[in-house]
Amino acid sequence: MAVKFQGKYLDGFVKPEEFNNMNREIELCHNILHQKNGAGNDFLGWLNLPFQYDKTEFEQIKKSAEKIRNDSDVLIVIGIGGSYLGARAAIEFLGSQQYNNLDKNKLKVYFVGNTISPSYLNNILALCEGKELSVNVISKSGTTTEPAIAFRVFKELMEEKYGKEGARERIYVTTDKARGTLKELSNKEGYQTFVIEDDVGGRYSVLTAVGLLPIAAAGFDIDKIMLGAQKACKDFETPGEHNDCYKYATARNILYRKGKSIEIMASYEPNWQMMNEWYKQLYGESEGKDQKGIFPASVIFSTDLHSMGQFIQDGSRNMFETVISFKQAGEDYFVKKDKDNFDGLNFLADQPMSEINKKAMQGTILAHVAGGVPNIVLEVDAMDEENLGYIVYFFEKACAISGYMLGVNPFNQPGVEDYKVNMFALLGKPGYEEQREKLLEQLSK
Amino acid sequence: MAVKFQGKYLDGFVKPEEFNNMNREIELCHNILHQKNGAGNDFLGWLNLPFQYDKTEFEQIKKSAEKIRNDSDVLIVIGIGGSYLGARAAIEFLGSQQYNNLDKNKLKVYFVGNTISPSYLNNILALCEGKELSVNVISKSGTTTEPAIAFRVFKELMEEKYGKEGARERIYVTTDKARGTLKELSNKEGYQTFVIEDDVGGRYSVLTAVGLLPIAAAGFDIDKIMLGAQKACKDFETPGEHNDCYKYATARNILYRKGKSIEIMASYEPNWQMMNEWYKQLYGESEGKDQKGIFPASVIFSTDLHSMGQFIQDGSRNMFETVISFKQAGEDYFVKKDKDNFDGLNFLADQPMSEINKKAMQGTILAHVAGGVPNIVLEVDAMDEENLGYIVYFFEKACAISGYMLGVNPFNQPGVEDYKVNMFALLGKPGYEEQREKLLEQLSK
Repeated sequence: MAVKFQGKYLDGFVKPEEFNNMNREIELCHNILHQKNGAGNDFLGWLNLPFQYDKTEFEQIKKSAEKIRNDSDVLIVIGIGGSYLGARAAIEFLGSQQYNNLDKNKLKVYFVGNTISPSYLNNILALCEGKELSVNVISKSGTTTEPAIAFRVFKELMEEKYGKEGARERIYVTTDKARGTLKELSNKEGYQTFVIEDDVGGRYSVLTAVGLLPIAAAGFDIDKIMLGAQKACKDFETPGEHNDCYKYATARNILYRKGKSIEIMASYEPNWQMMNEWYKQLYGESEGKDQKGIFPASVIFSTDLHSMGQFIQDGSRNMFETVISFKQAGEDYFVKKDKDNFDGLNFLADQPMSEINKKAMQGTILAHVAGGVPNIVLEVDAMDEENLGYIVYFFEKACAISGYMLGVNPFNQPGVEDYKVNMFALLGKPGYEEQREKLLEQLSK
Repeated sequence: MAVKFQGKYLDGFVKPEEFNNMNREIELCHNILHQKNGAGNDFLGWLNLPFQYDKTEFEQIKKSAEKIRNDSDVLIVIGIGGSYLGARAAIEFLGSQQYNNLDKNKLKVYFVGNTISPSYLNNILALCEGKELSVNVISKSGTTTEPAIAFRVFKELMEEKYGKEGARERIYVTTDKARGTLKELSNKEGYQTFVIEDDVGGRYSVLTAVGLLPIAAAGFDIDKIMLGAQKACKDFETPGEHNDCYKYATARNILYRKGKSIEIMASYEPNWQMMNEWYKQLYGESEGKDQKGIFPASVIFSTDLHSMGQFIQDGSRNMFETVISFKQAGEDYFVKKDKDNFDGLNFLADQPMSEINKKAMQGTILAHVAGGVPNIVLEVDAMDEENLGYIVYFFEKACAISGYMLGVNPFNQPGVEDYKVNMFALLGKPGYEEQREKLLEQLSK
């Protein structure tokens, strides 16, 4: 398993000595991170997590996952942001975007509590009718509005369907180890609980119970995921020529300082799509602050070559691309010969589609580079558990280093509170009366 | 039905006189468009399309849709870019993102030929097993690689399953009216065909057979869609204070000229997500050229307030937001009182979720504006067929005007060819030998 940084498509945009000129800055950021004396150093639990995690809880995750697979048709996962994106991204990456449609996957996994749309909730409730259910609610405080509303709905549904006792056996709570609404409720009701550590932020939490319980319930091997993360943790332990994770962090900062203010994460595998969303949270929330940051965008090619392709080829030159390339990406398909060659495609016959897809990628990289878009290529071995663990750690560590290079605290997210405060005020939550008056005045203007 | 431009959250970013100062430019662009003497004037078939469309073909679309609904479990739609996004966006907007999962929808609609990923193809093939199938292949030339490969696969599958005769009755071809590989094949095989007009580009084609056949097959009322488009066509026929479509085009150009280089399209309804993708093609492909253009990005809130929210609130100040707000958005849900108020949410009890969602929207707009992000709000009445037609025309016309203001040809997409040429060369397609040598040299560096 590996993620390799391929920098050759930066030629013409970044000179080799520019990387060398960054070496001392990288070392500085590395030291800040590993000596844990930088901004946000309360949130570095993810750094050695691949080795230092609670092994007893890990076994319990596997047991609970097995129980869910045995007694349920549907697992409802309630969470938002980091309590949602990592697990969904992993399941679609390892399984399929069509995971819930495929007959071979007996357990369906639906994510709720990440929106306040009633249509969405009603649709998921319809999908639950007549099915055996389990619920995993994920929230550190238990008071975040979106998941709290969803949990109120599903707690009631479960108690109606299975009774208090029965529901208790099917509700799994991932929350703070000691405090908060959900923890208190779990103590009272006797729910199985898992821990959201204080020193691992939401966007860094996919390798904790937050991500691992839904991923394991979906039938994937979380031991292998941790193995992959361990390998990455070792591979990127020190700065130096071998450290592809740091090279990625460096390249994006060099490009940003040259005025490239948008990063487009691109993959040729649709099953990567939610990983793009996971990446957007990780980087957007870590770097987008103090009026700075690379705007994270994403595409799935070749699909989006027919929507965003024109812009990338020839529009505003304020972007760079990071392309995820897989050596192997699941079962292949061979285009067959047609005796009439009605569509002129016989020149592709007997080629594996994966090869055609790879040629599309190579052709696109060269076209975009010629069009003035620097391309970073990250080469990944395969779309499996070990590589997933490796990828997650690669991006997490690169993000921390990149954020320190940018000069921000990569581990806070003060801006996320602003909408919440306004929302509470407008909803009439007790304690927000003054803000409410101010906002109502602004709205009525 | 309506789309209303709400400009009050531009206060502090754009002065009212700035709009006035643009009036002559708007009039100029309007005249270029309506007198059909601007760049790309061969592609203005969409302008009067809501009234001037082939009524006979329209009836045939409805008949074919009915036949598909009667004899099929699955409709496979083969197309890429404009031959894919509009139909899928409409079906998810009118139905649900979960459209294919919901039991009440007997006919499943799967989109293929928009990627070269073998995993994706294999998944869809698995979903077709044991099902009654129809196929709608959409391609003007019939030679675009992605859909051509998919059609080769599904043509063979259909002929194996139903025999030559049977397959013929279940394959629907939307293509050029006279020329091209698919037209020739259709003549030979006797497929039912529908026309892709010469003067309607792919990204402007959702209100033609390209979009309407899959949408009608999915069970939606295409008469109502056309009614909505007609209303918009009339409402935005002339420039002036009443023209909210032109106001939107003007606002985005004013903001772009102030250095706002990213537009984030935001909605609080997950079923809007593919409409975001449709918007990205429409605007990205129309405006992203000559090293110019507003980069189109998108979010679904409140979901993405927990991923991109931090960046929007407080990151690089190079963006504006366009928020789609629905007066009504499907069936509502009421949060119930809990006797223990275990989660402290009783202050929301008996409120419709749609109201909570609206408060989240208002709170977010005010927070982002306070953070320095200009917000445009587009108010839409409902998520139904008539409003869909209206929305489509609103965005199409605003895009044309906006592109002319930017000084580009809004109707070409020369940059999309570059990757295709490279891909053909690398795949060894006859005729591309010279380019192939050049590219192989670049790759081996």
